[in-house]
Amino acid sequence: MKILVLNCGSSSLKCQVFETSPEQIAATTDRVLAKAAVEKIGTRSAIVSITVDGRRSRDTQPIPTVDEALRVVLSAVTADAPVEAVGHRIVHGGEKFKEPVELTDEVVDQIEDLYDLAPLHNPHNVRGFRAARSLLPNARQVAVFDTAFHQTLPPHAYLYGIPYSYYAQDRLRRYGFHGVSHRYIAWRYAKIHSAPKERFRIISCHLGNGSSMCAIDGGRSIDTSMGFTPQEGLIMGTRSGDIDPSLVLHMMEQGGEGPQAMDEILTRKSGLFGLSGLSADMRVLLDYSGKGDTRAQTAIDVFCYRVKKYIGSYLAALNGADAVVFTGGVGENAPAIRARICAAMDRVGLWMDEAANEAAAGKEARISRPDSPVGVWVIPTNEELLIARDTLRFLLGLPQPD
Amino acid sequence: MKILVLNCGSSSLKCQVFETSPEQIAATTDRVLAKAAVEKIGTRSAIVSITVDGRRSRDTQPIPTVDEALRVVLSAVTADAPVEAVGHRIVHGGEKFKEPVELTDEVVDQIEDLYDLAPLHNPHNVRGFRAARSLLPNARQVAVFDTAFHQTLPPHAYLYGIPYSYYAQDRLRRYGFHGVSHRYIAWRYAKIHSAPKERFRIISCHLGNGSSMCAIDGGRSIDTSMGFTPQEGLIMGTRSGDIDPSLVLHMMEQGGEGPQAMDEILTRKSGLFGLSGLSADMRVLLDYSGKGDTRAQTAIDVFCYRVKKYIGSYLAALNGADAVVFTGGVGENAPAIRARICAAMDRVGLWMDEAANEAAAGKEARISRPDSPVGVWVIPTNEELLIARDTLRFLLGLPQPD
Repeated sequence: MKILVLNCGSSSLKCQVFETSPEQIAATTDRVLAKAAVEKIGTRSAIVSITVDGRRSRDTQPIPTVDEALRVVLSAVTADAPVEAVGHRIVHGGEKFKEPVELTDEVVDQIEDLYDLAPLHNPHNVRGFRAARSLLPNARQVAVFDTAFHQTLPPHAYLYGIPYSYYAQDRLRRYGFHGVSHRYIAWRYAKIHSAPKERFRIISCHLGNGSSMCAIDGGRSIDTSMGFTPQEGLIMGTRSGDIDPSLVLHMMEQGGEGPQAMDEILTRKSGLFGLSGLSADMRVLLDYSGKGDTRAQTAIDVFCYRVKKYIGSYLAALNGADAVVFTGGVGENAPAIRARICAAMDRVGLWMDEAANEAAAGKEARISRPDSPVGVWVIPTNEELLIARDTLRFLLGLPQPD
Repeated sequence: MKILVLNCGSSSLKCQVFETSPEQIAATTDRVLAKAAVEKIGTRSAIVSITVDGRRSRDTQPIPTVDEALRVVLSAVTADAPVEAVGHRIVHGGEKFKEPVELTDEVVDQIEDLYDLAPLHNPHNVRGFRAARSLLPNARQVAVFDTAFHQTLPPHAYLYGIPYSYYAQDRLRRYGFHGVSHRYIAWRYAKIHSAPKERFRIISCHLGNGSSMCAIDGGRSIDTSMGFTPQEGLIMGTRSGDIDPSLVLHMMEQGGEGPQAMDEILTRKSGLFGLSGLSADMRVLLDYSGKGDTRAQTAIDVFCYRVKKYIGSYLAALNGADAVVFTGGVGENAPAIRARICAAMDRVGLWMDEAANEAAAGKEARISRPDSPVGVWVIPTNEELLIARDTLRFLLGLPQPD
């Protein structure tokens, strides 16, 4: 089946067309036929990148809306065969959506009811859905939720220490994000080891511009570092991650910011960028740090130390782990970061293989010594592939997830 | 030397009179001669408790001010011999005070400069100092800071992921509290094992109404769970502990609270009390939970799980540990809580001795099996003793700390 996987952000759109079937999933021969991305939607110089049959084109043109963006790329990526279904990445499924679901009008209403919980993401995702429905009226539309994988968190992991009514009435709790990525890691790790995922306890470290970690017990998420919003947890490109809540209030008191202005500071001006004063991009920071920039080095240190602490915390939550897996742009491609995170962790079971770590970039590899009590791996994530598979299985009535 | 140790809160005062000397410290024979506490200062029914020579009296009387409270108890606790020095527990020493210091006018000015950092505590501590100076004009006054022990934190542990200027200009960072208690644990653990504290990596869990944890490497604090304020970290009696910062802002946006009102909710209506809707007191919750109250059980679960995660996180930060030590009212006296925290941690090195744990209440005891890779201990804390010793050593020009 040809499936378009669509991910719509505030001013960007990414999509891939997959050819997949139950047989192809079993043999892991399902594959990307084409992909496309549009950035800076709503401007006169939107950037359109399209890859079909391995050939990549890049173009700048005025693209006013998501509808127009999708129209432009669809004609290119679905030229040879019509798309039969669209798998949408929807950020927030609340407590309602624990599985993929067909995007009926009723479901869209329910997703809109969740806007309060994810004001920055869900509206764009729904806009993508509307564009896809109007341009591909014969394709079935399926939603795959980034929160769904974490719906297995036990209450002790998802409740905050605030008055219970905030949860009982308003569903304020840890939801977690990056669920599709962490689930991919759990699946892929089991596949590599030719054993059912139920056998493994894994700590998945998705380190990219947004970063999160997940404790996975037998294929089920039991804890994750992002919380009610993607703000909590690790230091990210421009997000603060964990911070004393009373410090946030102190900053507001001193600076006079209201909640929205403060959120803007914590979301867009903090993290690696805020600490370094240089960049949100780890590659840039590594470069500066190499040249002796101490602020860049400090930002990297804070980032790595927090990942290290979460690894420990999830080792405790899982009562040990089979493996720590690095994924995401930074996790897959920055050996220096992985080395720094895992340095001096031999007594908690991480015995690194320096050469293997150094050599691993963007490909699956074990980077710990073979006898390491806890394996350390690099596994590139593939959220789109999993969304395509989820969509296929949902439409064929096959069990979810694998 | 006779030393009065004084701890002044917003409406309470606690003090103890110690007899201590270098010889007594070496032999750990320094001891309490008398102690007293006044609660509900500023009311017509302040409660005055005094213990002298093992005899305890309790009385209710109108006490309008701290000065009056101190006057009432001083006559009782210093009846037989005059106090030569007063050791004051001062909550916040900022980055300025890393050691005990004599409370000169200049030092008091500097402590007042820190009021912004600790508006809830330092002013009361200073009020206690002024009362003591006027009532005991011949005694020397020494300040011992609750933050000082954590001044050894490296930048990667004390910096938050916020714009660096907040630190560079306003010193907004992790300070940590309960430092005197955690330092006592480090000292006492080494003493029990007849070895220098430099040899040990310890995770100290001070669990009481306020709770914090500390990773201690060779006697030095390298990380701690309380942050810029005592709000961060573990779930406490009425404090939330860690929470997604953007959730706090969301709550303000929805509920209309300003920073102070929100701080009030997070500080006084949250934690065990907020989650359970019943009590901030762990004993009460254990009681309710035993009778099948699910909300009490949930509050306990969330509390214990968070301690478990911090243990793991500090195991990673320390690269393994010699021991996890429980202290504080809950840590010393609640075997059920310790058992729940340490349950299913055998693969990260905690092998509990259930009977030993059950038997340990309010006294020093190993509660792990002798062959446990990480020892688990109960060690009652004694912050007042350490303040008395610090005061003595400071006045005699002996090195700090032991």
